[in-house]
Amino acid sequence: MSQQTVAVLGLGNMGGPMAANLAAAGYHVVGYDPVPAANEAAVARGVEVVPSAVEAVADASVVITMLPSGGHVIDAYKGPDGILAAAAPGTVFVDCSTIAVEDARAAAELAHEAGHRALDAPVSGGVGGAEAGTLTLMIGGSETDLDAVRPVLEVVSGRLVHCGESGAGQAAKICNNMILGISMIAVSEAFVLGERLGLSHQALFDVASTASGQCWALTTNCPVPGPVPTSPANRDYQPGFASPLMLKDLKLAMQAADSTSTEARIGALAAAIYTDFAFGPGRELDFSAVVQDIRDRSQSGD
Amino acid sequence: MSQQTVAVLGLGNMGGPMAANLAAAGYHVVGYDPVPAANEAAVARGVEVVPSAVEAVADASVVITMLPSGGHVIDAYKGPDGILAAAAPGTVFVDCSTIAVEDARAAAELAHEAGHRALDAPVSGGVGGAEAGTLTLMIGGSETDLDAVRPVLEVVSGRLVHCGESGAGQAAKICNNMILGISMIAVSEAFVLGERLGLSHQALFDVASTASGQCWALTTNCPVPGPVPTSPANRDYQPGFASPLMLKDLKLAMQAADSTSTEARIGALAAAIYTDFAFGPGRELDFSAVVQDIRDRSQSGD
Repeated sequence: MSQQTVAVLGLGNMGGPMAANLAAAGYHVVGYDPVPAANEAAVARGVEVVPSAVEAVADASVVITMLPSGGHVIDAYKGPDGILAAAAPGTVFVDCSTIAVEDARAAAELAHEAGHRALDAPVSGGVGGAEAGTLTLMIGGSETDLDAVRPVLEVVSGRLVHCGESGAGQAAKICNNMILGISMIAVSEAFVLGERLGLSHQALFDVASTASGQCWALTTNCPVPGPVPTSPANRDYQPGFASPLMLKDLKLAMQAADSTSTEARIGALAAAIYTDFAFGPGRELDFSAVVQDIRDRSQSGD
Repeated sequence: MSQQTVAVLGLGNMGGPMAANLAAAGYHVVGYDPVPAANEAAVARGVEVVPSAVEAVADASVVITMLPSGGHVIDAYKGPDGILAAAAPGTVFVDCSTIAVEDARAAAELAHEAGHRALDAPVSGGVGGAEAGTLTLMIGGSETDLDAVRPVLEVVSGRLVHCGESGAGQAAKICNNMILGISMIAVSEAFVLGERLGLSHQALFDVASTASGQCWALTTNCPVPGPVPTSPANRDYQPGFASPLMLKDLKLAMQAADSTSTEARIGALAAAIYTDFAFGPGRELDFSAVVQDIRDRSQSGD
């Protein structure tokens, strides 16, 4: 039985474990990352590392990219020295990076023009989900292209959701994460208001977790220690989902809102709040630590 | 077996069915409301209606108030012509109105000074919950006083949550509803942004309902028709929970934030958004109709 080759470009916190899981599942995984330590870790987990992205894609039928920004993806894809030119015709390019909807559409168009197939497939589930192979993948692109790589993606994903045509996966991710960022601030403001009214964290949790205030930000990632033992609040807000990553997603959402003239006032305020926080005290903390910022900003009262 | 007398003051959309359920459970229910139609409806459902609040409480061991504002509650309680003066010593006053935390504390203090017992017990669950006897009651006051009226309250409530001392029930309710109001705007902004990015309602729902954007506002009261058949969006946004009531709760939350110097920027913006909406197109609509307002305000784009 001939082994299918999958290229993975970007072997960091997310791409590294995804590549390792594919290797463990029996695929021939060829990887590339500009960071030597990432390459070393990947080699130790069964990935063949090569000196360039172009070499990585040469024999691959599927190319997974997990890169920091839309600019990185498009730069890697295009031009005579790009990976689209280097890959065999009909290769399926699966971009798992979280990037702007318009960048995702541009990347897919470049791939199609070069005779390839393309999906946007941003993930949720964090490093834990990448390690466990249980990421949720939000897919934009054709059903046919998705079906062609479904067995590969099922190795890294516990849930594949086909959201629509190119860019729809990115759209779903930023809309979801905009709700999440706003919810976390809402829950945090409620806990601080409760504190100042003499309401215990547990009492508010007991009411809201089973009432109309219930949300993932409260019941899974509860921003105060105690009610949800597994939430980052119980480990000094070590991420989890770091504030700068939440800021990145809120900025992508606001970029999309601007480009489509969408009124998103609460989203814009959430982006402003996370801008202050992620560049300030929240730089290395889980996004739920914004509760501390709200508490600090509230005056001592009387 | 002697029948316990419960007074219910305020026989409107909420107090009316609560009184009827108590009568159906075998209590002697004496009610009062300034609105004749409310009295007639109550009589038809087994409530003895009397011409004044003072007469209603004369033989009652428990007095339930369900009134529009803190001013109404305090006016009814105090003074030589008030119900505190008219009731037998040791009567338990249970205020189910949604009012300011400081008004709730003042009302309880008045009751205690008059030799009575007092709980704040705002409800959630709406008219449907009142009819079905399944309201959630958020209780502030002593455990002893709660235990004294637990059998009565269990007739109208599916869930009693003791939140702390006087005012804690009101605090829990406004904190919960502040999360709810913000969440609803967040979900609505996400749906409109998704629309303008070409993402279907169902695709966003499928992603967010089982991911980190999950919240009651999405999965129970979904603001767009389709994904959740029972949500008000499927019946032209007939309430449900009317926008002016959401605005009332957000204003109470902002009043509490102001009086405690709590930083609640997202809550304040949500209150501003619902102020525009509830006095404008949302006057008679469910609070989830705010999605239409966000859609209308978004320009047509290019």
